[in-house]
Amino acid sequence: MLTEMGRMARDAFRQMANAGTRSKNRALQALAALLDQAQPDILEANKADIQAGRDSGMSDALIDRLTLTETRLKGMSADLRRLVELPDPVGERFDETVLPNGLKLWRQRVPLGVMAVIYESRPNVTIDVSGLAIKTGNAAILRGGKETIHSNRILVELVQKALEQSRLPANAVQFMDNPDRALVMELLRLHQYVDIIIPRGGEGLHRFCRENGQIPVITGGIGICHIFVDESADLQKALRVMHNAKTQRPSVCNALDTVLVHRTIAAEALPRIVRYLSPAGVSFRADESAMPFLVQDKNENTPFSVPVTPAGPDDFDTEWMSLVLGLKVVDGIDEAIAHTNAHSMGHSDSILTENAANAARWINEVDSAAVYVNASTRFTDGGQFGLGAEVAISTQRLHARGPMGLRELTTYKWVAEGNYHIRE
Amino acid sequence: MLTEMGRMARDAFRQMANAGTRSKNRALQALAALLDQAQPDILEANKADIQAGRDSGMSDALIDRLTLTETRLKGMSADLRRLVELPDPVGERFDETVLPNGLKLWRQRVPLGVMAVIYESRPNVTIDVSGLAIKTGNAAILRGGKETIHSNRILVELVQKALEQSRLPANAVQFMDNPDRALVMELLRLHQYVDIIIPRGGEGLHRFCRENGQIPVITGGIGICHIFVDESADLQKALRVMHNAKTQRPSVCNALDTVLVHRTIAAEALPRIVRYLSPAGVSFRADESAMPFLVQDKNENTPFSVPVTPAGPDDFDTEWMSLVLGLKVVDGIDEAIAHTNAHSMGHSDSILTENAANAARWINEVDSAAVYVNASTRFTDGGQFGLGAEVAISTQRLHARGPMGLRELTTYKWVAEGNYHIRE
Repeated sequence: MLTEMGRMARDAFRQMANAGTRSKNRALQALAALLDQAQPDILEANKADIQAGRDSGMSDALIDRLTLTETRLKGMSADLRRLVELPDPVGERFDETVLPNGLKLWRQRVPLGVMAVIYESRPNVTIDVSGLAIKTGNAAILRGGKETIHSNRILVELVQKALEQSRLPANAVQFMDNPDRALVMELLRLHQYVDIIIPRGGEGLHRFCRENGQIPVITGGIGICHIFVDESADLQKALRVMHNAKTQRPSVCNALDTVLVHRTIAAEALPRIVRYLSPAGVSFRADESAMPFLVQDKNENTPFSVPVTPAGPDDFDTEWMSLVLGLKVVDGIDEAIAHTNAHSMGHSDSILTENAANAARWINEVDSAAVYVNASTRFTDGGQFGLGAEVAISTQRLHARGPMGLRELTTYKWVAEGNYHIRE
Repeated sequence: MLTEMGRMARDAFRQMANAGTRSKNRALQALAALLDQAQPDILEANKADIQAGRDSGMSDALIDRLTLTETRLKGMSADLRRLVELPDPVGERFDETVLPNGLKLWRQRVPLGVMAVIYESRPNVTIDVSGLAIKTGNAAILRGGKETIHSNRILVELVQKALEQSRLPANAVQFMDNPDRALVMELLRLHQYVDIIIPRGGEGLHRFCRENGQIPVITGGIGICHIFVDESADLQKALRVMHNAKTQRPSVCNALDTVLVHRTIAAEALPRIVRYLSPAGVSFRADESAMPFLVQDKNENTPFSVPVTPAGPDDFDTEWMSLVLGLKVVDGIDEAIAHTNAHSMGHSDSILTENAANAARWINEVDSAAVYVNASTRFTDGGQFGLGAEVAISTQRLHARGPMGLRELTTYKWVAEGNYHIRE
């Protein structure tokens, strides 16, 4: 059954790959309209998921993730209409050249192929991924969680209706209606039909896809993010950046996890960091290198002393996803870079400094998808980077790194035009 | 033991990634000089491999593949010196922009990481891959075949000596000295240290890497290449192109395997193709659609009739690697594209036509790494495309497609420079 789905996805891909920008945009418009019209039915289906979740004792947080509302649905159709406005990367030529023998040669952007997306809970991902696939001329096989099966069924029905209305193949977006986990294993091995696996979930899901699959996996979305406060940093401005990186949205992958402070400014900086961030609810895990600077203040009964506890052995390898912040003192740029490369997941890491040489070393030597100088790590995001849309944030090295927008859902072919050219 | 090798490769990679162009070029120069100086020792070691090959009853063709000569060694050092002259892709900035909030953003090319290359027989691959790894600041783990172990040992020794002489880490190029096949399995699962697997061998090896690995594999180097002779083609010129694509070097992956002929010109074209190519030793497998046009001539006792035999069921899915050519008649561009997409391995496919609309459809709809209009398929090659060097020809879709040069051995990071920017 899954093989048949793969075969149909591949056939649909061939048609999608050659669809014009106008007809792909028409499908996006049609889908946005259908979403608006079908609101009552979608909310009805979503209620069934919510009820099933409640019956099975799902937490309020999880219930919230799978809940659709009028506002959320409106946001989804607005996103689709924004996608219409974005330039279509397919067909773009680059590296155009004429070889010495007169052969005209260029690379031309083409859709990536069939992508399989494995996700949970949030039904908006269904529309999100469908929209991105349509815009880029790819085909998608969606495997949502069983907790949103009613919502996803109706949403995919609308997607397929929109495709048909625009004379595009309905099978360009298919949904694995059967929540059997064994089918996920089968999907991961369908390499003759599927070109890329995009897991949207935690580290366990990513590992599962990599270990059991025969198809390249875009791993990412997990970040242990660092800010190194160099001795030359403007401390007042640095405090604002750390506050932003830690507290603006603590539950996301580009939120700050660890602050490294240069030893020469540790005595001043560490107490100020604790004082500045603790009113926002931040608590601290201090390395033994940092404790002396904080304990000293503690004896003086300063108000920040309460939320500082000694860091445990795994604390600097933990993505906090909450208002916890690691603190560590380093001897300088060398140790800061070494610590970051050893503990970062290669997502987003920033240096705050006035020293150009150290900034350059940070840029070149920190091996992460996004490296920052004097900026919050929170910018690592397709929207913030001006990509307009984002399918994932990759922390692996092949194909695409960091925020993946429309262009990153394409590949290229070489095109050569000659006059009956032969190789000498 | 392999884990330790992986860890050392990763450490070496960090140093290589930050090595300057000058010191990487110095290592290439040093290696070229060492190759020249050590010629007698290398040939001596190579003799041991040749002797072992003979003792085990290896064929002359295989013995030739593993044989080094003074000329071949000179060619290897000349290649290294050419590599020195090529621009270093590492550090290149692209997509530079300033976001509305004033944050400066660009992508910066960085080395890909640790690559594991699995190959057989030809010991020149050892130097070839080492040179490419050094130039691009990557680290490599080499797994050559046991039939060239003596040659590879001394070659890798020279590579490591050249690295040390240039103050680069010797572990940037490591060699799996133990030919135990179980270690290959282990290598394919070393995802915490190895970023990419490059198999250089036949389809079996590629499949083995994909099915047993947890690391992205660059599959490629296998092509079933098509030329479609459209009704408007200049037949005299078309004959030269087919002759070139089929006979210039029949044993390589971009050599021609199948000719598709438009039905309206089949009666004239097919006999001429057979007549033009058979003197070069080409024999033909004709589809039943083509046979009538050839049988007819056969009855007239034309000289080309001998090498034409009816095609078997798998013939159009066979990479011939020899002077065999499939012939098939198609009803037009639709059938030509459909046949090509169904039977090509996605390597190189060409249309010969004077019809611009058909040329455009071929370019857009044939889903291969390299698509040609009025040119021989033999151009798909890093050297021919002006890349200067080539590590592989990829027929998979992710990361790189077609000839992979220096740039395709890099990835990128995002760099953002701000003035203590925070996300609003």
